[in-house]
Amino acid sequence: MTFAQNPRDTDDDKLHEECGVFGVIGGADAAAATALGLHALQHRGQEAVGITSFDGAEFFTRRGLGHVADNFSSGDSIAELPGHVAMGHVRYSTTGGAGLRNVQPLYAELASGGFAVAHNGNISNSRALRSELVGKGAIFQSTSDTEVIIHLVATSRYPTMLDKLIDALRLVEGAYALIVMTPRGMAACRDPLGIRPLVMGKLGDAIVFASETVALDVVGAEFTRQVDPGEFIEVDFDGTVRSHRPFGERKARPCIFEHVYFSRPDSIFNQRSVYESRKNIGIELAREAPCDADLVVPVPDSGVPAAIGYSQQSEIPFELGIIRSHYVGRTFIQPSDGARNAGVKRKHNANRAIVEGKRIVLIDDSIVRGTTSLKIVQMMRDAGAAEVHFRVASPPTGHGCYYGVDTPERSKLLAGRMDLSAMREFIQADSLSFVSINGLYRAVGLASRDGDSPQYCDACFTGEYPTPLTDLAQRHDREAQLTLPVNKVA
Amino acid sequence: MTFAQNPRDTDDDKLHEECGVFGVIGGADAAAATALGLHALQHRGQEAVGITSFDGAEFFTRRGLGHVADNFSSGDSIAELPGHVAMGHVRYSTTGGAGLRNVQPLYAELASGGFAVAHNGNISNSRALRSELVGKGAIFQSTSDTEVIIHLVATSRYPTMLDKLIDALRLVEGAYALIVMTPRGMAACRDPLGIRPLVMGKLGDAIVFASETVALDVVGAEFTRQVDPGEFIEVDFDGTVRSHRPFGERKARPCIFEHVYFSRPDSIFNQRSVYESRKNIGIELAREAPCDADLVVPVPDSGVPAAIGYSQQSEIPFELGIIRSHYVGRTFIQPSDGARNAGVKRKHNANRAIVEGKRIVLIDDSIVRGTTSLKIVQMMRDAGAAEVHFRVASPPTGHGCYYGVDTPERSKLLAGRMDLSAMREFIQADSLSFVSINGLYRAVGLASRDGDSPQYCDACFTGEYPTPLTDLAQRHDREAQLTLPVNKVA
Amino acid sequence: MTFAQNPRDTDDDKLHEECGVFGVIGGADAAAATALGLHALQHRGQEAVGITSFDGAEFFTRRGLGHVADNFSSGDSIAELPGHVAMGHVRYSTTGGAGLRNVQPLYAELASGGFAVAHNGNISNSRALRSELVGKGAIFQSTSDTEVIIHLVATSRYPTMLDKLIDALRLVEGAYALIVMTPRGMAACRDPLGIRPLVMGKLGDAIVFASETVALDVVGAEFTRQVDPGEFIEVDFDGTVRSHRPFGERKARPCIFEHVYFSRPDSIFNQRSVYESRKNIGIELAREAPCDADLVVPVPDSGVPAAIGYSQQSEIPFELGIIRSHYVGRTFIQPSDGARNAGVKRKHNANRAIVEGKRIVLIDDSIVRGTTSLKIVQMMRDAGAAEVHFRVASPPTGHGCYYGVDTPERSKLLAGRMDLSAMREFIQADSLSFVSINGLYRAVGLASRDGDSPQYCDACFTGEYPTPLTDLAQRHDREAQLTLPVNKVA
Amino acid sequence: MTFAQNPRDTDDDKLHEECGVFGVIGGADAAAATALGLHALQHRGQEAVGITSFDGAEFFTRRGLGHVADNFSSGDSIAELPGHVAMGHVRYSTTGGAGLRNVQPLYAELASGGFAVAHNGNISNSRALRSELVGKGAIFQSTSDTEVIIHLVATSRYPTMLDKLIDALRLVEGAYALIVMTPRGMAACRDPLGIRPLVMGKLGDAIVFASETVALDVVGAEFTRQVDPGEFIEVDFDGTVRSHRPFGERKARPCIFEHVYFSRPDSIFNQRSVYESRKNIGIELAREAPCDADLVVPVPDSGVPAAIGYSQQSEIPFELGIIRSHYVGRTFIQPSDGARNAGVKRKHNANRAIVEGKRIVLIDDSIVRGTTSLKIVQMMRDAGAAEVHFRVASPPTGHGCYYGVDTPERSKLLAGRMDLSAMREFIQADSLSFVSINGLYRAVGLASRDGDSPQYCDACFTGEYPTPLTDLAQRHDREAQLTLPVNKVA
Repeated sequence: MTFAQNPRDTDDDKLHEECGVFGVIGGADAAAATALGLHALQHRGQEAVGITSFDGAEFFTRRGLGHVADNFSSGDSIAELPGHVAMGHVRYSTTGGAGLRNVQPLYAELASGGFAVAHNGNISNSRALRSELVGKGAIFQSTSDTEVIIHLVATSRYPTMLDKLIDALRLVEGAYALIVMTPRGMAACRDPLGIRPLVMGKLGDAIVFASETVALDVVGAEFTRQVDPGEFIEVDFDGTVRSHRPFGERKARPCIFEHVYFSRPDSIFNQRSVYESRKNIGIELAREAPCDADLVVPVPDSGVPAAIGYSQQSEIPFELGIIRSHYVGRTFIQPSDGARNAGVKRKHNANRAIVEGKRIVLIDDSIVRGTTSLKIVQMMRDAGAAEVHFRVASPPTGHGCYYGVDTPERSKLLAGRMDLSAMREFIQADSLSFVSINGLYRAVGLASRDGDSPQYCDACFTGEYPTPLTDLAQRHDREAQLTLPVNKVA
Repeated sequence: MTFAQNPRDTDDDKLHEECGVFGVIGGADAAAATALGLHALQHRGQEAVGITSFDGAEFFTRRGLGHVADNFSSGDSIAELPGHVAMGHVRYSTTGGAGLRNVQPLYAELASGGFAVAHNGNISNSRALRSELVGKGAIFQSTSDTEVIIHLVATSRYPTMLDKLIDALRLVEGAYALIVMTPRGMAACRDPLGIRPLVMGKLGDAIVFASETVALDVVGAEFTRQVDPGEFIEVDFDGTVRSHRPFGERKARPCIFEHVYFSRPDSIFNQRSVYESRKNIGIELAREAPCDADLVVPVPDSGVPAAIGYSQQSEIPFELGIIRSHYVGRTFIQPSDGARNAGVKRKHNANRAIVEGKRIVLIDDSIVRGTTSLKIVQMMRDAGAAEVHFRVASPPTGHGCYYGVDTPERSKLLAGRMDLSAMREFIQADSLSFVSINGLYRAVGLASRDGDSPQYCDACFTGEYPTPLTDLAQRHDREAQLTLPVNKVA
Repeated sequence: MTFAQNPRDTDDDKLHEECGVFGVIGGADAAAATALGLHALQHRGQEAVGITSFDGAEFFTRRGLGHVADNFSSGDSIAELPGHVAMGHVRYSTTGGAGLRNVQPLYAELASGGFAVAHNGNISNSRALRSELVGKGAIFQSTSDTEVIIHLVATSRYPTMLDKLIDALRLVEGAYALIVMTPRGMAACRDPLGIRPLVMGKLGDAIVFASETVALDVVGAEFTRQVDPGEFIEVDFDGTVRSHRPFGERKARPCIFEHVYFSRPDSIFNQRSVYESRKNIGIELAREAPCDADLVVPVPDSGVPAAIGYSQQSEIPFELGIIRSHYVGRTFIQPSDGARNAGVKRKHNANRAIVEGKRIVLIDDSIVRGTTSLKIVQMMRDAGAAEVHFRVASPPTGHGCYYGVDTPERSKLLAGRMDLSAMREFIQADSLSFVSINGLYRAVGLASRDGDSPQYCDACFTGEYPTPLTDLAQRHDREAQLTLPVNKVA
Repeated sequence: MTFAQNPRDTDDDKLHEECGVFGVIGGADAAAATALGLHALQHRGQEAVGITSFDGAEFFTRRGLGHVADNFSSGDSIAELPGHVAMGHVRYSTTGGAGLRNVQPLYAELASGGFAVAHNGNISNSRALRSELVGKGAIFQSTSDTEVIIHLVATSRYPTMLDKLIDALRLVEGAYALIVMTPRGMAACRDPLGIRPLVMGKLGDAIVFASETVALDVVGAEFTRQVDPGEFIEVDFDGTVRSHRPFGERKARPCIFEHVYFSRPDSIFNQRSVYESRKNIGIELAREAPCDADLVVPVPDSGVPAAIGYSQQSEIPFELGIIRSHYVGRTFIQPSDGARNAGVKRKHNANRAIVEGKRIVLIDDSIVRGTTSLKIVQMMRDAGAAEVHFRVASPPTGHGCYYGVDTPERSKLLAGRMDLSAMREFIQADSLSFVSINGLYRAVGLASRDGDSPQYCDACFTGEYPTPLTDLAQRHDREAQLTLPVNKVA
């Protein structure tokens, strides 16, 4: 499988949501709907995919590396997954050696019957739990933190599967949006803070769960509501839906980066249009950081909505000064004769006829390491831009995420090691501004950030983590000399 | 190779350029540069790719189904193609049974040495020539019309390879942009009318040829000039460049659809920015067919530049009312429970939050069969649009192309079987307008179309073919009952 | 992997040893030696193969379907398995759905460190043990009975790995020859009756374990001695060898079928040359069942040694009246026009020039279902044999094996459902004789079978099983209507 | 396809027949019968296989590297080859780069219709013919000498396919057994000397052609007769069979090595049982080179029939002192710790219990390079043999073959560079004898070799080539410094 050789686009300088989940119960073509739903969530994880179905008697699982379409577009692949209930998972990364073992859904034959789970998020005390379980004789199949949940369920003394799962989740800390399948039906739940997203819909008589509403749209389902933070929803095969709140009521803190970049612009997240949030960020940015320029140019595609907002607010014309190739993914061998930046041009190429001689405002959604931003500024200058002003539709990203997002270690985050002026110099822009944290909160419809009890998880901007980080703390004890360790989450 | 099972995106309703070509002579990493150049031309052909190199002694060829990145991104694949000269080809379709045989470059060992050729275009008398050659004992390896050229060269009585090739091309009718490699060097030529594009650039000391300037940008080469219609350029290994005009001077008629859809917006075609041509078409369209509406919504991605033009001219805001998935290609199994149009939503999804309750002007580059246009209008209405006005950035496409473009037969072209009012009804839009043919010529910088001697080939709009169509005429004799036969071009 | 589609040669009518094991500790090229050793044991299992190595820090495992040569002949495959200790396993069958999961060595990360195991044999109370373990929260990865051992070790309360393993094996009933690898070294052990074979050798400074001595020959090792029944041998990385007898002393009962068919003729089993045992059986058979004939013809290749013995004793010339193809394995599509028995001819073809007009004595090692014997008799008659006398170099096989041998259910064993005369009629031979059970014991150097305490396990001939058969008994309780259930062993 | 990496068993020291051919016309399951027939001819070529069928309208071809069973055992593969006529080819070697191109049957679309050919043999003036054809404009697809025949047919001026083919074959020199398929039917022919074998049979109403009679046996066909040297047999779809002798009558000289090694022992070649010929050679050898020994030991499998003859004549007991593994093919990585000769033991292992302390006569069919013979003698000594006498069932092989057999260059043939005494010393045997050339002729039923006009081609023993060797002579002119060039035949 050549895909595995070079799975990440190394020119990409984004934070990455690690996973997307989708499940459907009660429909005739459960596996086909799941494949389509996962395809709509492909932006949440491109490196591996799996689907599990249950036909009333047996569980069936099929997994693969690569895209949903590479693995589940054939009739044969769907025919291997019979039954009226199915669920699946796309994930961003599969750690090398483990190959398909870490690809979800994970499945186990428990004393109480089959149990399958798909998980978006990260359990921040999984190492501690795992080592305790192994000490008691548990044998792990994968290196995934999700398997911890299965072993906790398997060894729970509670009688019902529901109680076992709640028992297990009480021991778990971190972020999770889970879909679970058993011979009794399907369950979906979200951690008490609702850090990772999960929504519910209706497709004919079937109930659907998905990470984002766009997956409901694509399969033709209607959006019912979000799964609430700390909510645990059970669906039986007869269509009965029961909601539980085993962890009591707490104030939610969903991930604000879903508005900034992770979710698709046509999704509704936390009751708001993602597209409108992004356009609003552009409007805020135009107010906070205006600019005397000839053109507003988005870094496509993620910078486009904010650029439209910036253009409408500033009345500077919006133009495609950078053209994005549809065909990206793999890195190519660089010919040594090539001019600088052939790599980045493979993905983004300057539209010289538009840019030449112009003062431009570049709009991007975020800056992570800054390496791509530098190349894009250079590309604009090489194409003859007279001035290049950089405007970023999120605050500086200075802190790692431990809730299921792939983040570089702090020392590699541009905002983790430089102030604004140094960042501007690094990317060689004529000016650089980020939207303020309050500007961001205004763009998502709030008056401002509530400093005592923030309405969203914004730890990547503020460093204020809403949960304890047990594994990290233990590692710090062991590796005290490191300022911040590599954030290797699953 | 699963890609081959279902190579075409059946929801796509576009005309398709059949091929892209790229060649480089004199550079250290010729094959790597060729892979990168072909990657930049991937939009001209996604179904197969091949590269041939020559190391001074031997020719090396590697071909594959699928994208350039699937076949030529590894170091191993490039290492199989040593030498300072290489050329390659991407193509849109490979006829089933023939598999890799039809994938170019084609290569033959002639008495005068090796001969490799990559061809964009279509030879419209290839059947007649082929049958004559087979009658004389020629054995064909492929069903490609390009192989006819090789056999004509092989059996030519002229002494030099240059003369043999000119001798061969004199017998050929139709459209071609050719790159040829022999042990003596590289040659590039374009048919007398210059129907298909071909440009020349410089990459350090190396000479580069490519279908479009974007490929020069991506490899880091400088644009020198286009290869002129009817021009034949020889490049030796010592860098000597010789230009010939073996067919005399004729007025050029390049394909106007390169401006409308085929070329990338960041390419320069026939001395003009393609992006600006498209934006100008949007401006012309706003003048010719204004509309009382709330939003201008492009059908992404090809409708975007014209929509920007339309918005700027009409002062109606530009908004992303349709979101395009980055992950398309394969058709999925449709779950029977799904609402209508799950297929089209896989690729294009309505941004309901933006569209709901609004009067929208949809902008697309062209309408071919009309099936996708209908689905997109429906999707807008399903998302709550109050009115849907459709504006098309090209004249009605009522005629097939026989010059290397994959066109449905006339009876399947919407404009081939209906008038404007019937088309509007078919796609269920509130109003429908196409840019006029003179509006299109104005958008590309001309006062108007010269009816006596048109400045471009516009046969798909006007039915005026600039060359004889021998194979088609012979087929008509045989199949007189058909109004227009299937256009099976290569 | 097409091999998996049709893994068994359906024309084959033999009992099959399920597995072969090989391990080496202390040598420079442990994985390469293991691959070669397993290759020499390929006749013990052709459907899957795996090797695990340990480099002092990490364990490495590689498994595959098919032959050793298909999976471990490349340098790359061996390079994936670094370290001075390695062990491997070939197996006869992998149950469909489970794919590679059941392929050994099995490996688990226990609290005490890594633990890998390769097992030849069958645990006859594995279902009971498994269900108990699952009840306590154990999660199984495979359907293999071998995994039961790992879970028993993981949950044992004893402190050392040695004690844990002994603790686990005390709970286990049935037959096993085990090789185990831990970060401390390698261990090898054999069940108290020594049903399955296991030998020990020396390769330079390294210690080697293998199912048969032929594997020692092929890797160039010297035969030291057999691992004794009930013996547990530990080898450390410094070369220290310790022998334990945790189960006390019991009289051994090794499998007599190793002499009849399972072992290679060039192996030494239970202190005797297998080739000589087989030749002796032929001599006994010639004494017990003489025949007036022109030629002794072996059913190749397994009938050859007994046929040589029969020929030498009877002074009837030995001739190759049947030629065996070297290229067997897969079943082909049968052309309907073909004469009868094209299937069997693909593997065995009559040497008509030799057979025509002659009275022949056919010698085969055993008869299981009798279907192939019938076809071979027919083939001899079709080739013009005047008379066909069948002599079998083992007693009638009337009982299933539950110790790691793939046996058809009793109702499909020819000797399980017919007496001698009916068997002769079924296979259409002019006469039929089997060697007597005492003749067989004489051929392996004993005066006769000790009825009170047999010197070998001969349950397949006598129905006297030397251990309890717990799973089978429980199944009988559940399925009392079945005379004898399918023997699904692993 | 890993098979291609290491296709030859490098421990093998045999001459190799390059090809086997099979064709059937008039039967319902032509492709299935062809697959089965080729499987029976697998010993004539293991590295590639192809089948072509014709369904009355179209030709279908499928080729692959590896064994017949790897490529043609599935129902799907056979279903791709519809029609009542099919033919196929197995070949020994495929030259690297060319991959599947050189795999036969070769096929061409000629002006007169489709033309497929499968060829066993070698055209000894193919270079000269090829260069002439290329000079006239022919374009070759492969490097195979067989393609020369197709081009000669394509450019022949004769009207019928029969006449075109005869016209082509008149220009050809060397050895060929050909099967040809056209839309008119099938034809089979053999070169005027009948060097390579070809037989004809009947399968119901269908006519079958094959390299050996064993293929007729396996598909259930009846042997009709051999195709005579210089005979050209046409079979129409209505079953009409016509025989032609376009080259007049000449005395035949079939290859005597078919008796020695190439053909399967159960085949009838040139009216004689191959098994009996081989046994007779053993008898002649026992007369010409008797030996005072305890055991006759064959080098399995090819030495077995001669060893049986030697044993019967000498009355020294026949024993399997060497056991051959059924699982050979690929070379393994040699562990450096291994004792000498692990490689040869992988295939042949000493049966120490039999050999130890004995004086043995080893019987092999031939000695080519002598390297394996040396290893086997050493293996016998390592196993404790008191004396090792080597007897070879063919005369010394001192000359290359240019008729479709893969032979090392003369300087690598043991008998090409040493006399008998040096050979004995090289292989370290106590004595060495070859059967005499007249002994060989007696064994195949003749009084002696006719020196003026030999009854067989025996050039590999005598150096007397029955045809001119044009390509070789021309190469000699060019490379006068070489005593004898590499014999690279196809």
